[in-house]
Amino acid sequence: MGMEGERAGGGSANEEEDSAEQVVNPWEVSSSGGKIDYDKLIDKFGCQRLDPSLLDRVQRLTGRPPHVFLRRNVFFAHRDFTEILDAYERGEKFYLYTGRGPSSEALHLGHLVPFMFTKYLQDAFKVPLVIQLTDDEKFLWKDLSVEESQRLARENAKDIIACGFDISKTFIFSDFDYVGGAFYKNMAQVAKCVTLNKVRGIFGFTGEDHIGKVSFPPVQAVPSFPSSFPHLFTGKNDLRCLIPCAIDQDPYFRMTRDVAPRIGYHKPALIESSFFPALQGETGKMSASDPNSAIYVTDSVKDIKNKINKHAFSGGQDSIEKQRLYGANLEVDIPVKYLSFFLEDDAELECIKKEYGSGRMLTGEVKQRLADVLIETVERHRRARAAVSEEMVDAFMAIRPLPHMFD
Amino acid sequence: MGMEGERAGGGSANEEEDSAEQVVNPWEVSSSGGKIDYDKLIDKFGCQRLDPSLLDRVQRLTGRPPHVFLRRNVFFAHRDFTEILDAYERGEKFYLYTGRGPSSEALHLGHLVPFMFTKYLQDAFKVPLVIQLTDDEKFLWKDLSVEESQRLARENAKDIIACGFDISKTFIFSDFDYVGGAFYKNMAQVAKCVTLNKVRGIFGFTGEDHIGKVSFPPVQAVPSFPSSFPHLFTGKNDLRCLIPCAIDQDPYFRMTRDVAPRIGYHKPALIESSFFPALQGETGKMSASDPNSAIYVTDSVKDIKNKINKHAFSGGQDSIEKQRLYGANLEVDIPVKYLSFFLEDDAELECIKKEYGSGRMLTGEVKQRLADVLIETVERHRRARAAVSEEMVDAFMAIRPLPHMFD
Repeated sequence: MGMEGERAGGGSANEEEDSAEQVVNPWEVSSSGGKIDYDKLIDKFGCQRLDPSLLDRVQRLTGRPPHVFLRRNVFFAHRDFTEILDAYERGEKFYLYTGRGPSSEALHLGHLVPFMFTKYLQDAFKVPLVIQLTDDEKFLWKDLSVEESQRLARENAKDIIACGFDISKTFIFSDFDYVGGAFYKNMAQVAKCVTLNKVRGIFGFTGEDHIGKVSFPPVQAVPSFPSSFPHLFTGKNDLRCLIPCAIDQDPYFRMTRDVAPRIGYHKPALIESSFFPALQGETGKMSASDPNSAIYVTDSVKDIKNKINKHAFSGGQDSIEKQRLYGANLEVDIPVKYLSFFLEDDAELECIKKEYGSGRMLTGEVKQRLADVLIETVERHRRARAAVSEEMVDAFMAIRPLPHMFD
Repeated sequence: MGMEGERAGGGSANEEEDSAEQVVNPWEVSSSGGKIDYDKLIDKFGCQRLDPSLLDRVQRLTGRPPHVFLRRNVFFAHRDFTEILDAYERGEKFYLYTGRGPSSEALHLGHLVPFMFTKYLQDAFKVPLVIQLTDDEKFLWKDLSVEESQRLARENAKDIIACGFDISKTFIFSDFDYVGGAFYKNMAQVAKCVTLNKVRGIFGFTGEDHIGKVSFPPVQAVPSFPSSFPHLFTGKNDLRCLIPCAIDQDPYFRMTRDVAPRIGYHKPALIESSFFPALQGETGKMSASDPNSAIYVTDSVKDIKNKINKHAFSGGQDSIEKQRLYGANLEVDIPVKYLSFFLEDDAELECIKKEYGSGRMLTGEVKQRLADVLIETVERHRRARAAVSEEMVDAFMAIRPLPHMFD
């Protein structure tokens, strides 16, 4: 029996490269055709598209409008999200699980996307949330010491907390701190169900890779199972889990979903986002090695203006005359793309697209509006992060019951 | 760079089979030639023979005669035991590490061998000891649940405690209880240093094996490093480790010794035993699937007598007349072999060998003497085990400092 969702080419990292000319896995996102073809990816991975009727249902069940990332199709795919909504409608609760690999000190805007969305889900559905910081993964994949990985995890936790999570419903943990006990037992349960051939197929590991890489997938799998958190969910093994994440994490959870019913749990449901594009254009994720490819939450007002003006790929024409005549190509325009993530006002976004696409608005004006929006977003984040004390980090990361997590 | 000790054929499980016609690894001990050739094994693994001068040195340093298992060559090989004695002579302490995979409820005499010897080492050198119960390993390799593996670990702990370990110097732990924190960090450190190709070479894993197996070797490796036990050895990362074990565990520690200096630790030293033979003859380890192949600590007096009389392979002649004429073949005689493990009196053992080998003593008489010795050993063990309370198990397994561990 193959794994679910392995349709075209078995989901193998290598085969994906061959057939679809695009590679999407937790360590590489690239496409020989330039842009990632998300339709192809949905077909390849075997997940579902988030259609408007689901968005309507979210609105009806939560009593609030769908998040901008839903309205704008940033989160565009899912697995079993319908089952989560069915259960919720029956009065059953669920929990959220998301995470981050703490490889860098400063986060960029793309890193904030899943957390901003997760905060919305937590508020809208009033459910508990576990956030995994995979400091072990980053130690294993990068040239980082254990101590440095742990330090980065803690720094990143501050940025995550700054997104506004409700401490009465949120548990943040780092693997190096938390692995053990029930969590380790679940790791062993998962590992026993997955062959070496299988992980080589899913993740593309080779014989030259170290065994830390081979050992890691169960670590990312098991927060999907409520028993991994006995201080939260004792006696609630039937609780469902919903994972908001970027679609490059799908391989981990294809594996997890394959194993889940064999060890007595629901398959975790997923709600998956596309990638936040680089300033230079929509060819994949941003690169940590090029600081000009992304806006960081540590960037100054001047940095942000400079990056947008100098590096944001424009779909506008190269002279004012031509722009007035032909208008901008919105399909490739990064300022419009970024605005579609961060400008919440639907009417204003539509207006900009119309004016800019028809040539009545110029590139400089759109970039100016984007700079205003991002400066406000970054400043707001920076103020929130400055208010996160070490004690608050300790409090979010304390192993503790959350008595009001379902209130 | 190859791994230390990989001389003939790289220490590969498969190559060993091809060239030496004997397979010795943690999961299989067999030889097409019948008996294991220990000289060949020493050469293959690249360890050293324990020679008489080392035994003299042990006697001089500890002020007590070498254990019967040393005098009789049961523990016959080592790695860096000389360095341990050098350090001890300079006034440096070390710690002992041994373990057990808790796959069965009842232990047989062969299982007791490493623990009886480890108790002697603890008493003679006055050093702390950590004992790992690899319930995770048994869960991963056998058709056992997590809970059953844990239950067996606790039952086996009682047998181990019954061997007489000093609670003020001994920490017993099960992996499912203890993995986490510093121990897990060390697992990641080791895993990062060992490629998939390497573990396939050392342990013979294939693509059809599950990734739990691939993930396990670091778990058995890291008790060799003092920082895995912060409650015992904080600030003592320079402490040396001596591992008494059967030689089938050598592959784990070849891997560990390869990694140790790369992550800042001494290579663990080893002192390694041959295998306690089956009642049916010396063709390897005893088999849990055949209860008549071994004497269990739960066997009754009648069981023991029956097993010895019916199943112990005899080197004696098949009639009294021929025995008187030709004497017994001591090389293949199991009662003599068993006596050499458990009859402490050197003079009596020599006398039996002489009388039996020359035909003056009959098989029945030797079997009678063996029965007496084993009944006494088993009865003593059973009394000691009956006195081990649940509270005592909890006390040995409590994560606690051992303030008098070096006294």
